[in-house]
Amino acid sequence: MKKKITIAIDAMGGENSPDKTIEGVSLFLKENTNNKDFHILLYGDETKINSRLKKFKISSNEVKVIHTNSIVSDDETPLTAIKNSKDTSMWKCINSQTVGETDISLSAGNTGVLLVISRMILKMMNKVSKPALAGLWPNEKGMNVVLDLGANIECNENNLVDFAELGSALYKSLYPNDKPRVSLLNVGSEEIKGTDLLKKTFKKLENLSNENNFLFNGYIEGNQIMKGDSNVIITDGFTGNVALKTAEGTAKFITDNLKKSLNYISLLFSFFSLQNFKKKLDPRKYNGAIFLGLNGPVVKSHGSTDALGFYYSIDLCYKIIKGNLMTEIKNNLNHLESE
Amino acid sequence: MKKKITIAIDAMGGENSPDKTIEGVSLFLKENTNNKDFHILLYGDETKINSRLKKFKISSNEVKVIHTNSIVSDDETPLTAIKNSKDTSMWKCINSQTVGETDISLSAGNTGVLLVISRMILKMMNKVSKPALAGLWPNEKGMNVVLDLGANIECNENNLVDFAELGSALYKSLYPNDKPRVSLLNVGSEEIKGTDLLKKTFKKLENLSNENNFLFNGYIEGNQIMKGDSNVIITDGFTGNVALKTAEGTAKFITDNLKKSLNYISLLFSFFSLQNFKKKLDPRKYNGAIFLGLNGPVVKSHGSTDALGFYYSIDLCYKIIKGNLMTEIKNNLNHLESE
Repeated sequence: MKKKITIAIDAMGGENSPDKTIEGVSLFLKENTNNKDFHILLYGDETKINSRLKKFKISSNEVKVIHTNSIVSDDETPLTAIKNSKDTSMWKCINSQTVGETDISLSAGNTGVLLVISRMILKMMNKVSKPALAGLWPNEKGMNVVLDLGANIECNENNLVDFAELGSALYKSLYPNDKPRVSLLNVGSEEIKGTDLLKKTFKKLENLSNENNFLFNGYIEGNQIMKGDSNVIITDGFTGNVALKTAEGTAKFITDNLKKSLNYISLLFSFFSLQNFKKKLDPRKYNGAIFLGLNGPVVKSHGSTDALGFYYSIDLCYKIIKGNLMTEIKNNLNHLESE
Repeated sequence: MKKKITIAIDAMGGENSPDKTIEGVSLFLKENTNNKDFHILLYGDETKINSRLKKFKISSNEVKVIHTNSIVSDDETPLTAIKNSKDTSMWKCINSQTVGETDISLSAGNTGVLLVISRMILKMMNKVSKPALAGLWPNEKGMNVVLDLGANIECNENNLVDFAELGSALYKSLYPNDKPRVSLLNVGSEEIKGTDLLKKTFKKLENLSNENNFLFNGYIEGNQIMKGDSNVIITDGFTGNVALKTAEGTAKFITDNLKKSLNYISLLFSFFSLQNFKKKLDPRKYNGAIFLGLNGPVVKSHGSTDALGFYYSIDLCYKIIKGNLMTEIKNNLNHLESE
């Protein structure tokens, strides 16, 4: 019998938790009523969680609740959190992987603390120089993986090459039939463009490019991120963070202006079209950044997302474990040695 | 009598030139029929320019045409262009500033060549460590200046401080009654965030902040660029270029999806609302990046813009000279010494 996919969820992290986390779980259970290959573990305040399980009509044999006494607050720094965090929902949710109980951990709590605690508990994989935070980004043909989104604000060429292997493994776990095309973010697409660091990384990725791990697609510029010609986009955490947030800000600016421009009549007649538009670009669909390069995957949900957004991050956890993320990562890291 | 504002225009650079450049001039002349404080000089192929002047009914006393024998092509590298460029429309358009004829130069031609030629001819101002390319960026309350957009992919703290002085001077030339608020682009708004370079720059900008030159507003993240709480946003040319292009790509992605989502009926009923929306966000309005830090300003129009876009870049030239850009820059650079 195949082992079930076991997802550890920090039920307490993020705004409006555990309401939104448990509602997110109920959405996931409804979507997967005929699907029994997974198991969900909820970490947090037992009393609060149980009352929400009741509210959302989740029976006690569908999930397992593990009581913890405290939570990591949003304004806590990694330093204080480490001292005080061993009985928090976040710590136990991640620690569950080291005792072999769970395959993946999900939290909507404090990002800084989550990254530090995850690294402390799960430890970096042998062949990885730095772990990275990868995000999903919509494009014209489907979906990109972009990394690093801010875990490492300064990177060398080995870090960027590792990101290419990690990101490609993530992409393959989500789309097992695709060969990921990797691009390096730059200020121009010609080989002479960019910093020395990017030129060195370019050479290394060119040498590593193959049919089994990833195909290197060269440089791309910011305006090509959403074109869909690349599947995995590599950059340092500073640039990736600025690019992601600039895209979020631009999207907000445009949709806010669109709302202001539409009058009552036009809203009435374009209601369904606009609903489709909104649905397609709903940022909740891409909720969940994946912390890669540790001996176990950790998914960070946006703190401010709602139950639907949290549902998508549970779904992401389920999919990447079903797609054998950790095996894909190990294969890709072996490939590194061929360089 | 006050000296007229004299704008030198490379009539041949960019797609569809000189058609679009001369049509852009005709739009500018129409907008300014009661305004006689400027003079326009057109550099390029006399025969071609004259035929377009006729087509757009521009009389010969409204502009002055200076014939040049060749043009800088789009695929030329700066290296070959320097050798062969002394009789091009671009070279002569910029060189006109050194003989005191003109106040500002505008071209829609090859960006790389324009930056190199401008620097060669106009030379860097004494107190400037590196010249920068600044752009206009719409925000919720009006307009930002963002720099550097790609002239310098690696910067030190003195470069970034210079950009703050140059960008504030540009902002004041456009909005003489405003006190520019300067922000530094980072991956978080707390003081502990970011690279050592940014922390050093933060300290220097904090010390320089005053009522006369600029007020330092601290760090901002990518999603705050379009919020309108800052007027001048400082970053290195690599990050600035990626941010700008990512914003362009995101805007295109969203508006393309909006078009696809709207059906015939909703388009019909929202036509005027959508026109307003389109008009407000029209990227042609922000056409024109300003090369700052040389002994004379150079404006780069998008090569692919149309006549209306080119009109906006002429208007930008006119406004920043009317707002005494070079005096503002000199004042701000003197301020540097107070640090």
